[in-house]
Amino acid sequence: MGFSALTLASAVGEERLSLAVVILDLALVYLTALMGGELCRRLGFPSLVGELLGGICIGVSGLRLIVLPRANLTAVDSVAVNWVAKLHGFSEPQVLDTVFNFQSDFFQTLASVGVIVLLFETGLGANLSQLIVNRSQVIAVAGVGVFLSIVGGSLTLNAFWDVGLIPALFVGVALSVTSLGITSQLLRRSGDFSTSESQAILGAAMLDDALGIVLLSLVLAFHESSIFSSANVLRSLLLTTLIVVISLLVGRGLSPLLMQLQRKLTTRGRAIVPALMFAYLLVLISSVAQLATILGAFLAGLSLQGSIRRIIAEHLRPVVDAFVPIFFVYIGAETDLRILLPWVTNAAWGNLALVLFLTAIAIAAKVASGYAVSSQEGINPLAVGLGMVPRGEVVLVFAEIGRISGILDPVLFAALACISILTTFASSFGMHWFRPEHISVPMRGGTA
Amino acid sequence: MGFSALTLASAVGEERLSLAVVILDLALVYLTALMGGELCRRLGFPSLVGELLGGICIGVSGLRLIVLPRANLTAVDSVAVNWVAKLHGFSEPQVLDTVFNFQSDFFQTLASVGVIVLLFETGLGANLSQLIVNRSQVIAVAGVGVFLSIVGGSLTLNAFWDVGLIPALFVGVALSVTSLGITSQLLRRSGDFSTSESQAILGAAMLDDALGIVLLSLVLAFHESSIFSSANVLRSLLLTTLIVVISLLVGRGLSPLLMQLQRKLTTRGRAIVPALMFAYLLVLISSVAQLATILGAFLAGLSLQGSIRRIIAEHLRPVVDAFVPIFFVYIGAETDLRILLPWVTNAAWGNLALVLFLTAIAIAAKVASGYAVSSQEGINPLAVGLGMVPRGEVVLVFAEIGRISGILDPVLFAALACISILTTFASSFGMHWFRPEHISVPMRGGTA
Repeated sequence: MGFSALTLASAVGEERLSLAVVILDLALVYLTALMGGELCRRLGFPSLVGELLGGICIGVSGLRLIVLPRANLTAVDSVAVNWVAKLHGFSEPQVLDTVFNFQSDFFQTLASVGVIVLLFETGLGANLSQLIVNRSQVIAVAGVGVFLSIVGGSLTLNAFWDVGLIPALFVGVALSVTSLGITSQLLRRSGDFSTSESQAILGAAMLDDALGIVLLSLVLAFHESSIFSSANVLRSLLLTTLIVVISLLVGRGLSPLLMQLQRKLTTRGRAIVPALMFAYLLVLISSVAQLATILGAFLAGLSLQGSIRRIIAEHLRPVVDAFVPIFFVYIGAETDLRILLPWVTNAAWGNLALVLFLTAIAIAAKVASGYAVSSQEGINPLAVGLGMVPRGEVVLVFAEIGRISGILDPVLFAALACISILTTFASSFGMHWFRPEHISVPMRGGTA
Repeated sequence: MGFSALTLASAVGEERLSLAVVILDLALVYLTALMGGELCRRLGFPSLVGELLGGICIGVSGLRLIVLPRANLTAVDSVAVNWVAKLHGFSEPQVLDTVFNFQSDFFQTLASVGVIVLLFETGLGANLSQLIVNRSQVIAVAGVGVFLSIVGGSLTLNAFWDVGLIPALFVGVALSVTSLGITSQLLRRSGDFSTSESQAILGAAMLDDALGIVLLSLVLAFHESSIFSSANVLRSLLLTTLIVVISLLVGRGLSPLLMQLQRKLTTRGRAIVPALMFAYLLVLISSVAQLATILGAFLAGLSLQGSIRRIIAEHLRPVVDAFVPIFFVYIGAETDLRILLPWVTNAAWGNLALVLFLTAIAIAAKVASGYAVSSQEGINPLAVGLGMVPRGEVVLVFAEIGRISGILDPVLFAALACISILTTFASSFGMHWFRPEHISVPMRGGTA
């Protein structure tokens, strides 16, 4: 046997350095998620807000511990990369650049996997049969909210801020989705909402998630084909409908099969691995069809039927816990809030106006959507509207997709991240101040 | 606000393609792990063997669904990359190469994270206080096994196969570690071993894990300093001792703190995130000291004290389930068994002889180690020896470290992968044929 003693000294050093940086990043991300999440939970807000704010603190706007390569940012801007390299005795710029770019690609990919898992979970949480009971209320609330968000957001961006048609539409669509996860968390915490109000809110939140994801998929398809023709519109619409219909049919047939597998197999992954295969398959199909990959992940969750849904959701929980915080912290780290500082950029006031304006539209559109139901139906319209306000994780998913596809510039990206935080705060405070019973009760200490 | 509409068409396509390939790879890896693991469990073997064999089936020696860039292997060899690229309408060789290299780095890093989690768990499973009860037996069995493995493996490799000193030593050290995980699985399944035999086996397995990891760390340090001087030996030994002592002291002090955190925090990650921070820190220190990163991970688990160990181990379980199968399948996919085929390479017979010879040494050394205790002590030496045979996951961890650091060539790497499988089979069959009671009972149907 001929043994060739390889002397890969530099390549080996690079691998060692890459691994050390990735491990440090992972440690920072999870620590940030834990601390931010814990703080926000104690103050009475969803942990998502804390993870996002924590990410902002350690990212490009803050300590710069974790920095990802964007315009003007290179390896020297990342404290983590520099620190680890110095400890390991490396200083060659090209080694640092390689490591810097790799850790960035690595985290972007992990975050994307997190998004897919998150949307699969969202799909599992959205129960089609629940929508059908209060369908008129649900359709009215979701429809008005989506319409006002898209029109309000995209028209004004296009008219007053000179944003192109595709990015303006993209932001409008991103504003239209209520976060099912955050809304149900807030409803559960406040506990004062009647069943009919909660049902209207949750139903409408599910419906506008579905609408938003389909619309996002369409905007993305227009963007990638780069020609905004009616033939393209038709092609994308047809493809989307086809995928929706096929996945709903396949999911229905697959559910009893997954249940059987879950009963017969003995290995730990028996409940979620086959289900994730189905999700992966739909993600691949969406990707090949040039639609948003999250459409596939969402449909996979949505299309499953029966008690296997609950079993899968339960087993998926640790996977979500492991991957999703990476996504939130990563988005926070990427959000460049310096665009809002007058001493950094001349455009700061304009940018600030844009962020506040979009936030106002995001809140107003959803509060108004509540009035699509009248109080004669035994429902408080304001309560429903407030419940629809939080955009939570879905707008972040949209923001990241917009950034990766090159549709959103850093300002619009940062605006969407701010909206995720601000709408969650607004809804949380709003739900306390304007309770469904119209009685002014003192706020709980925890939420001050 | 100046909005620049970026037309990143090709870059965006590459990102889409990378994500699609990574998702397909992940899907393949988990499916393979599930199927291989399930099959092996049903046949009565540890699932590790199935995951590894499954990886071999889909990897470079088999279907070539997942192929990682090594000598002579490029993007065109990977079925997954080619297939996804074709579906997405990509054919540019440089795009395929970029995607191919990225998915490879991505999986290697995920597998390395999996190794760190695995060794942290191994450390948590190795209880120092248990060693002390039967210390003479434990030290004798572990010492004889480690000594015979290292001397038998490295001397003969160096003498008969012309393998250099460092790789020969590395293989010898890799042969010296008994898999605590596999051994306890086999002992639990067989259930016929007396407590004293089991205790001797488990204690010796813990001790030789610890010894092996320290020795590996030293061999690695010699390799990286590339000068085999006594000053280097001394420096590495001192550093290793320092890290061992410090981490044991810090871990003891940290344990009650972690317990308090776990009680006071409310977020899901409260038990494992702080513990993983400690592990990450020790991994970083080991990395900076040019010792094996697994030393840090193992010490982190080993040094924690009291009931927090069990709590962390419990919460770590889903993380291990998510990451570790990636590592096993990945190792299988990397193992090139074509080196054993006479119609592929002229060296095949020599390689086959090497693999069989090393396997024989690996088995003989550990069976002999059982005779370090006499049957007068109420223990069956053969039973103890057989229990020490399985190398399981630890030898795979060593093989991967050797490959990344450039110490092991493909033949030695494949040999270690084969030894992991063959010793596990040998021990599994051996435990049935030569039961402690010396009674020949028919084998269970499940293990045939």
